[in-house]
Amino acid sequence: MGFDYQSVLRPDLPPPAMPWGGFPKYNFIGGHNDAANVPVDDLIAAANAVLKREGATLATYGLQSGPQGYRPLREFVAAKLNQRAGITCDADQVLMTSGSMQSLDLVNGVLLGAGDTVIVEAETYGGAMKHLQALGVDYVGVAQDGGGMRMDALAETLQALKDRGVRPKYIYTIPTVQNPTGVVVSRERRLEMLRLAGEFGVPIFEDDCYADLLWEGERPPAIQALDQNNAVVYCGSFSKSIAPALRVGYVVANWELLSRLLSIKTDGGTGALEQMVLAEYCHDHFNAHVGALQGVLQAKCAAMIEALESNFGTAASFSRPKGGIFIWITLPEAVDTTALAQAALAEGVALNPGAEWMADAAAGRHRLRLCFGHPTIETIRDGVAKLAEVCHREFGLPERSANVER
Amino acid sequence: MGFDYQSVLRPDLPPPAMPWGGFPKYNFIGGHNDAANVPVDDLIAAANAVLKREGATLATYGLQSGPQGYRPLREFVAAKLNQRAGITCDADQVLMTSGSMQSLDLVNGVLLGAGDTVIVEAETYGGAMKHLQALGVDYVGVAQDGGGMRMDALAETLQALKDRGVRPKYIYTIPTVQNPTGVVVSRERRLEMLRLAGEFGVPIFEDDCYADLLWEGERPPAIQALDQNNAVVYCGSFSKSIAPALRVGYVVANWELLSRLLSIKTDGGTGALEQMVLAEYCHDHFNAHVGALQGVLQAKCAAMIEALESNFGTAASFSRPKGGIFIWITLPEAVDTTALAQAALAEGVALNPGAEWMADAAAGRHRLRLCFGHPTIETIRDGVAKLAEVCHREFGLPERSANVER
Repeated sequence: MGFDYQSVLRPDLPPPAMPWGGFPKYNFIGGHNDAANVPVDDLIAAANAVLKREGATLATYGLQSGPQGYRPLREFVAAKLNQRAGITCDADQVLMTSGSMQSLDLVNGVLLGAGDTVIVEAETYGGAMKHLQALGVDYVGVAQDGGGMRMDALAETLQALKDRGVRPKYIYTIPTVQNPTGVVVSRERRLEMLRLAGEFGVPIFEDDCYADLLWEGERPPAIQALDQNNAVVYCGSFSKSIAPALRVGYVVANWELLSRLLSIKTDGGTGALEQMVLAEYCHDHFNAHVGALQGVLQAKCAAMIEALESNFGTAASFSRPKGGIFIWITLPEAVDTTALAQAALAEGVALNPGAEWMADAAAGRHRLRLCFGHPTIETIRDGVAKLAEVCHREFGLPERSANVER
Repeated sequence: MGFDYQSVLRPDLPPPAMPWGGFPKYNFIGGHNDAANVPVDDLIAAANAVLKREGATLATYGLQSGPQGYRPLREFVAAKLNQRAGITCDADQVLMTSGSMQSLDLVNGVLLGAGDTVIVEAETYGGAMKHLQALGVDYVGVAQDGGGMRMDALAETLQALKDRGVRPKYIYTIPTVQNPTGVVVSRERRLEMLRLAGEFGVPIFEDDCYADLLWEGERPPAIQALDQNNAVVYCGSFSKSIAPALRVGYVVANWELLSRLLSIKTDGGTGALEQMVLAEYCHDHFNAHVGALQGVLQAKCAAMIEALESNFGTAASFSRPKGGIFIWITLPEAVDTTALAQAALAEGVALNPGAEWMADAAAGRHRLRLCFGHPTIETIRDGVAKLAEVCHREFGLPERSANVER
């Protein structure tokens, strides 16, 4: 017997959560990182130093830095963005958030209402789409090619929406190590995106969460760095570069918008200990750590590619990522990756079906995303082999692997 | 020149934030804590121990504990609530949150829609009302006396709403060290509240944020501990007992509701470092720390009462709190505390005007809340004297202070 909560719940809630049953053995989903490369000793040293010096400031909400977040960390972010992304900003234009999911929520919170429309890349971050769905916001995907969002397609989409009287609230883009394709958009396309944004009066929401993990080729300036018009809201995170369980992200925007984000950030501030330790750690170690991490991820990426080639052969097509923690894979049309994901999970292999990572879910039906950041190289090899087995059992594909007929 | 964000902002936003200008000299607002009593050395030791042992688990979202939060901390919360509040629960019924403000947001998120109604205490937490306002939710205040929410008034309110066809979504109550009155509701009233909640089919939302700071008299069992019917959602926090800049709170509820809260907690988890350090620290030190902190706060409370008596004399009436960090004060009707707050802030004295801390803002016009947790005893003395000066200048009251005519 008990109170009947069904009668008081909102009618439009998502399904209830299931009790957590632990991580799957072959965990190819989620932005988890390499456990062996969490810089534990240096984080301990940072915690010691910063708490010894400033621990008493934990007694006040926002420490001595106010609601935008711990000032030394905002200063580090500004310096890092200047050095790595070409962005010119200072600590006053940086808002620390409780992970980049909160950055998305805050930007959405000041711009979006039910029935609004935004533009996204055709392949895009599933979590962002889920949050848009929860808000009742429509999203329109723009086709990508090997260079990222196609500017002709963006122009067409903007024009078609305009013809229908729809002014999209923003263009959401992950231009540097795109999620899930891993593409890096060229400087030229970035400039063209800015031109189109200006022409149609639509701001750009630039999500640069994976940019620090680019290990091949030059990193182009952030779109915000190329912007003359304050039309770009920029967000980033320490989840991918340091550790995802530390919930610290950031938004960079002009004060007109930042003051709005801040007015709806009514959470009593972002965790101070995490900000303090990160600031202390990153000041001395960020560049070296990220350099080493890139090498580790690159090796894991290579292992996953090798495993895919040897187990799926020509049945799996993909581009070799230049950074990040995932590979976006196209399988033959006969394979329904949503069904594959269910069957694979029963064998301990977790994957993101393409339907959850594309604006047009049907177009993702035979695609999938595999993350390689967390599993060891051995787990990657075994898990991809297991996945190929399950796929063959369920769909008769791949027909061959490692040149052996199945 | 720049992009015109006004044209894309939601129409119903709160006013933009102002740049942060630092804390006022006499900071009598906010749930800040005593800086000298942040247990810095023990937090450092805890950080060392837990990071050394489990630092590598930061590589996964949710550590190895899943989305409900770090399991050792949930176990500590369950044990603490059993010991201190008489609640019988286990770690599976505890959801760690990013501060109790997020607890409120999650509970509101699954229960409330625009146009809904909730019941609150006539004097209540201003932050809770702000969040309700942002959701377009109506709140009805129930009169309190020296024993907290009056049960006859609650019965009348529930009946009156029922007669109008309104079923309130919950009864929000802070029964132990009520904010702002400092009252502790008796066991008998708690049982009567449960009876009324059952009779009218309305759940109770019990906010126990300050309960660990009760320094006088026995702490009654939590309302949830007395509940036979799963009709109570309970929340608490480490902000007041350890440090507010650590953003860690918790909700205790049955799985039917917890699974709903969890399904809308899409933030990638609550900060793991803060949870790990808290769990490690609290296991050994919570009881001793809270005991010592109570003594410190009691002394500050006594200093504020002495300062009020000597500077305001009979012009200020209040009850002596049995715990917590604030005093709720009634001034003569001629004093408008919203105007007083503005004038006082110009002199460096920050206070919460009563209009922001009562469901019926007009009833709070000559009341105010003063927090004594953060300022030193000297600052309390000087600040209350300064406040009396400003009040006399603006409203001609108090007429006398320290038996000297002004």
